[in-house]
Amino acid sequence: MASEAQSSAPDNLPLVLIHRIPPFELSFKSWLPTRFRLLDPLDPSFSSPQTQSLVSSVRLLLCLGPSPLTSDILDRFPSVQCVVGSSAGLDHVDLATCCRRGITVTNAGDAFSADAADFAVALLIDVLRRVSAGDRFIRAGSWPAKGQYPLGSKLGGKRVGIIGLGSIGSMIAKRLEPFGCIIAYNSRRKKPNVSFPHYENVMDLATNSDALILCCALTNETHHMINKDVMTALGKEGVIINVGRGALIDEKELVRFLVKGDIGGAGLDVYEEEPEVPRELFELDNVVLSPHRAVATPEAFVALQEVVIANIEAFFANKPLPSQIELE
Amino acid sequence: MASEAQSSAPDNLPLVLIHRIPPFELSFKSWLPTRFRLLDPLDPSFSSPQTQSLVSSVRLLLCLGPSPLTSDILDRFPSVQCVVGSSAGLDHVDLATCCRRGITVTNAGDAFSADAADFAVALLIDVLRRVSAGDRFIRAGSWPAKGQYPLGSKLGGKRVGIIGLGSIGSMIAKRLEPFGCIIAYNSRRKKPNVSFPHYENVMDLATNSDALILCCALTNETHHMINKDVMTALGKEGVIINVGRGALIDEKELVRFLVKGDIGGAGLDVYEEEPEVPRELFELDNVVLSPHRAVATPEAFVALQEVVIANIEAFFANKPLPSQIELE
Repeated sequence: MASEAQSSAPDNLPLVLIHRIPPFELSFKSWLPTRFRLLDPLDPSFSSPQTQSLVSSVRLLLCLGPSPLTSDILDRFPSVQCVVGSSAGLDHVDLATCCRRGITVTNAGDAFSADAADFAVALLIDVLRRVSAGDRFIRAGSWPAKGQYPLGSKLGGKRVGIIGLGSIGSMIAKRLEPFGCIIAYNSRRKKPNVSFPHYENVMDLATNSDALILCCALTNETHHMINKDVMTALGKEGVIINVGRGALIDEKELVRFLVKGDIGGAGLDVYEEEPEVPRELFELDNVVLSPHRAVATPEAFVALQEVVIANIEAFFANKPLPSQIELE
Repeated sequence: MASEAQSSAPDNLPLVLIHRIPPFELSFKSWLPTRFRLLDPLDPSFSSPQTQSLVSSVRLLLCLGPSPLTSDILDRFPSVQCVVGSSAGLDHVDLATCCRRGITVTNAGDAFSADAADFAVALLIDVLRRVSAGDRFIRAGSWPAKGQYPLGSKLGGKRVGIIGLGSIGSMIAKRLEPFGCIIAYNSRRKKPNVSFPHYENVMDLATNSDALILCCALTNETHHMINKDVMTALGKEGVIINVGRGALIDEKELVRFLVKGDIGGAGLDVYEEEPEVPRELFELDNVVLSPHRAVATPEAFVALQEVVIANIEAFFANKPLPSQIELE
């Protein structure tokens, strides 16, 4: 465990401060301590004078999962110059403080991108073709007692608006093209070398889409970007898929639109007050609910380990960090 | 309705004999009678001497949906030279009798192929990434009460064996490639201009696959092709997706393998004793059950109408039929 690692690690290994909320385990604990000296505040020995003297000079903080990293916490570690994150989104990190202090920040890079993209595609087909709902229909013993289950809607020809054409969004586009979907996207800036139409604002994209897929970062600017007006523009047959963050959508409005049938359906992996899922959605067959599992598979965690280690090693070697994010 | 059409149709329109079991409606009833004179055995006037005299010379039979077309039924219409089908699979038609009598047979062509391919992909991702099971987990109120839902398995890198590389199978391959799947296939003959590895027998394909997708025709040769030995070869982590016909699989064995955990999971749109679905499967989270809805969407039925009409018109014009199948 961490204490063992702390005490047994040779003095000359680079210091890495762990930041994690209790449920988050250091899955690469077994080999990380062979290359770095880990300091873990959840470890009883952390408060010892010996460890505290090390903490005062620690330059790298490894933030596990979505553990909140506030300015208060960062203030406790004034020597930190780099935050290595292990998740795709970094809305749990006070990026403004990092930016002000000149702290370099990295995320999970592409480790989770393919899994998130796969899941977004699955959610879209599921909502359109009623896969989960059909499964529920059978397990309830309703087939053929209640007749034939209604047909869904064809994926081919659908205009899919991708919000956030980063690593995940690009992979979604690549996957959806062979299905015959017509792709467009919204992002802060038009991407060079991308031929899909770019919409500067989400309203215009919604107006011209049959489905919206959210896979952008949650920031002050993107908070509740999917509001009443956007859902109205998307229209009664429109579908919303969210593999980004719950608060990208005004969830109360979304529930109202879904319950009233003012949009066509939704596939949600994330929620505004996670793990709270609005109960009203439990009754709806045009909604697919997922317990925040889009992001990862065991295979992706292997890739994540590589990204995390590569970032830590690059930092200590004064080399460019593989998955450094842009702070602004 | 048909009787109206029969009586009002001008005498010079080509005769089309309808064959259907009662639940199957003629969805293109409204405009078909404007171009053809329809004879429907389910219509009360069918037994009238006037209609019977027409029936004795009818050359084209339109078979709706999976209505069984046995040799007995075909024998009643000795003048029939062409059977126009409206489904993708034609295992409900006595093809041996058609072949013997030199009757030309057509199927739904590509009308349903994209929908079936989309659904097969959705079932595969669903089984691997536990989409429907995760939805069930949330709706049961188990999140977060029962903790985090287990992660699924990554689609990328999976070796997918497609059984039947026809129109549907080819579309499945095209869709799965951008996910990073490694495609191979089994079919009676190696396809020209296809670079995926071809396996002459299903055992070898199963041995070299993480997932099998069934989308071939059900024939005497393919009946129960997925048996105990093939499932054993596929292995404990292997997944079976069936959008073909239920009897391609020895269903009793499949249930046994799934219940014992001797294969990894299954996504089933079709069943051996449809609409009977083995109850043992209702309890399994590694199985996705679909009430035979893979094949179609309302959009596909529009495409189907075009294929059916094109076949009928080509027949009466002595032109090659667009979706004639090979009889052997």
